[in-house]
Amino acid sequence: MIAMTVRDRIIIGVMGASACDAAVDALAADVGRLIAKRGAVLLCGGRGGVMEAAARGANEAGGLTIGILKDTHRKGCKVNPYIEIALRTGLGDARNWINVCAADALIAIAGGWGTLSEIALAKKINKPVVLLGSWKLQASPAVDPLPTADTAEQAVELAFSLIEPVDEA
Amino acid sequence: MIAMTVRDRIIIGVMGASACDAAVDALAADVGRLIAKRGAVLLCGGRGGVMEAAARGANEAGGLTIGILKDTHRKGCKVNPYIEIALRTGLGDARNWINVCAADALIAIAGGWGTLSEIALAKKINKPVVLLGSWKLQASPAVDPLPTADTAEQAVELAFSLIEPVDEA
Amino acid sequence: MIAMTVRDRIIIGVMGASACDAAVDALAADVGRLIAKRGAVLLCGGRGGVMEAAARGANEAGGLTIGILKDTHRKGCKVNPYIEIALRTGLGDARNWINVCAADALIAIAGGWGTLSEIALAKKINKPVVLLGSWKLQASPAVDPLPTADTAEQAVELAFSLIEPVDEA
Amino acid sequence: MIAMTVRDRIIIGVMGASACDAAVDALAADVGRLIAKRGAVLLCGGRGGVMEAAARGANEAGGLTIGILKDTHRKGCKVNPYIEIALRTGLGDARNWINVCAADALIAIAGGWGTLSEIALAKKINKPVVLLGSWKLQASPAVDPLPTADTAEQAVELAFSLIEPVDEA
Repeated sequence: MIAMTVRDRIIIGVMGASACDAAVDALAADVGRLIAKRGAVLLCGGRGGVMEAAARGANEAGGLTIGILKDTHRKGCKVNPYIEIALRTGLGDARNWINVCAADALIAIAGGWGTLSEIALAKKINKPVVLLGSWKLQASPAVDPLPTADTAEQAVELAFSLIEPVDEA
Repeated sequence: MIAMTVRDRIIIGVMGASACDAAVDALAADVGRLIAKRGAVLLCGGRGGVMEAAARGANEAGGLTIGILKDTHRKGCKVNPYIEIALRTGLGDARNWINVCAADALIAIAGGWGTLSEIALAKKINKPVVLLGSWKLQASPAVDPLPTADTAEQAVELAFSLIEPVDEA
Repeated sequence: MIAMTVRDRIIIGVMGASACDAAVDALAADVGRLIAKRGAVLLCGGRGGVMEAAARGANEAGGLTIGILKDTHRKGCKVNPYIEIALRTGLGDARNWINVCAADALIAIAGGWGTLSEIALAKKINKPVVLLGSWKLQASPAVDPLPTADTAEQAVELAFSLIEPVDEA
Repeated sequence: MIAMTVRDRIIIGVMGASACDAAVDALAADVGRLIAKRGAVLLCGGRGGVMEAAARGANEAGGLTIGILKDTHRKGCKVNPYIEIALRTGLGDARNWINVCAADALIAIAGGWGTLSEIALAKKINKPVVLLGSWKLQASPAVDPLPTADTAEQAVELAFSLIEPVDEA
């Protein structure tokens, strides 16, 4: 029997706060839409704000959406209505670590402290992360500046270009 | 604008060891196939043995398969070829906790110590778990016996029947 | 300058349910006391029942006690009054994994599902675990029986004997 | 019988990179020493650089030191020689989350991406964090500036002042 095997799909994480203004919402939706159009899976924290906008964009473009949630159970777990796979982790805010590991590359949009934790954890383990109107960071001693984009198109283009090559063996 | 919203999909976890004999392989594949046929997502640990057989069954029946992996990066991460969504967690064996939280119900097939940890963690947080030729457990003080199935059909039927009802609000 | 360096101390984990009868309480207290008398640190889940009894025994014998807790903050976090170091993990029940990793050896006393998860996770990563009136387990395929003790003295003796040797390099 | 109960001890986390220059080393040692002199437990990541310097300072002042490590086992786990309690977590870099939850307040000294992740996670859950020559951060939308110290004395004073009050009930 010949079984059809699959290669697991590229996953792009979009990180951002659970509340945002209309301009950031539109930007995040564009990012989500572009990720879906390139055939990748959209991963986010599954809640509102940037996460919901990105998931909405991807969902409307026919893409698969994953939300990484803090909860242990479906009951009481708030998920935005554009998430097809709600992945409950039971880790509380430690689920930010899962966001970072599960994505092939991350795009951080605006964002609060949770987003900053994801940017930092991504850099800690050399996972590509692109900033789109997000944090400005200055370390002592200095660190190389992070890849930064001005538009949704640039951000998605940059994120895909930074993914570690997959062996086709 | 009317956006089409989705309800996040039912996820059934199939737990079992990374090596198994042909009979257990066939059983796990049947379980995977039946889960897919009911429209649910198959979740497993993403590796070989029972996990691969269940994913193969689900994949061949056209279902979506998720593997919850120990790794942080794609590089060096072994995934069975029937996993469409490889969800890297960077948690090592602590990812067993994610298997339990992420699934709406679990089916444990045969299985080693990792499987036992998932059975126990599931019971700890009142997540439904069905045993299919798996561990026999005796506690002091005694605990209620776990739901047990003799066939793949029974196991899947039982697992779906035990899922906590979802409010349609 | 000559700095006095320390070797980090041996840590023995005592696992058990958050409620227990008087006989199990006395047994756990004896185990805690014997661990302290051997100069090791007592680690437990920090709550009541077996955890409290073991911590009380160790504390009364002048030993150091660590409780690994589910919470993120001091506020609202219940700790038994014999814990000197309350280590909050913010992991919920996933903190059972920390119990297993943090201990050099584990003693499981009676116990419920949480205890069983710790036994299984310990075996999964080859961490020594001794059963004292705890679960009876039967796997398919069969697994080697776990080290079992009949008394507190035996359990502690066995636990120390199973610790992986530390290089004195 | 009157059992002597304990209140679990105040824990101050010192976060910083695993390599640092002599000036930062001296600063971190001072911070560790001052924490110990105030009777609190010093918690760090257990490795070199800032973590080792802080632990050395605390250890030389007679304080208790805890290192939160990435590993599952003693074997192969590098711990600096001033750590009395090596708490292995088996979580890899996700152990940064434990650092944040386990401490009553955090002091970030200089520091790389790991330190930044701890600053951000601390802010995410409203855990006090004091910066001592560490990251300069600018968010959009803006966030309140973090408490910043110029000397070890100031940093320790500030950290203790920010700890959430403990009910003496």
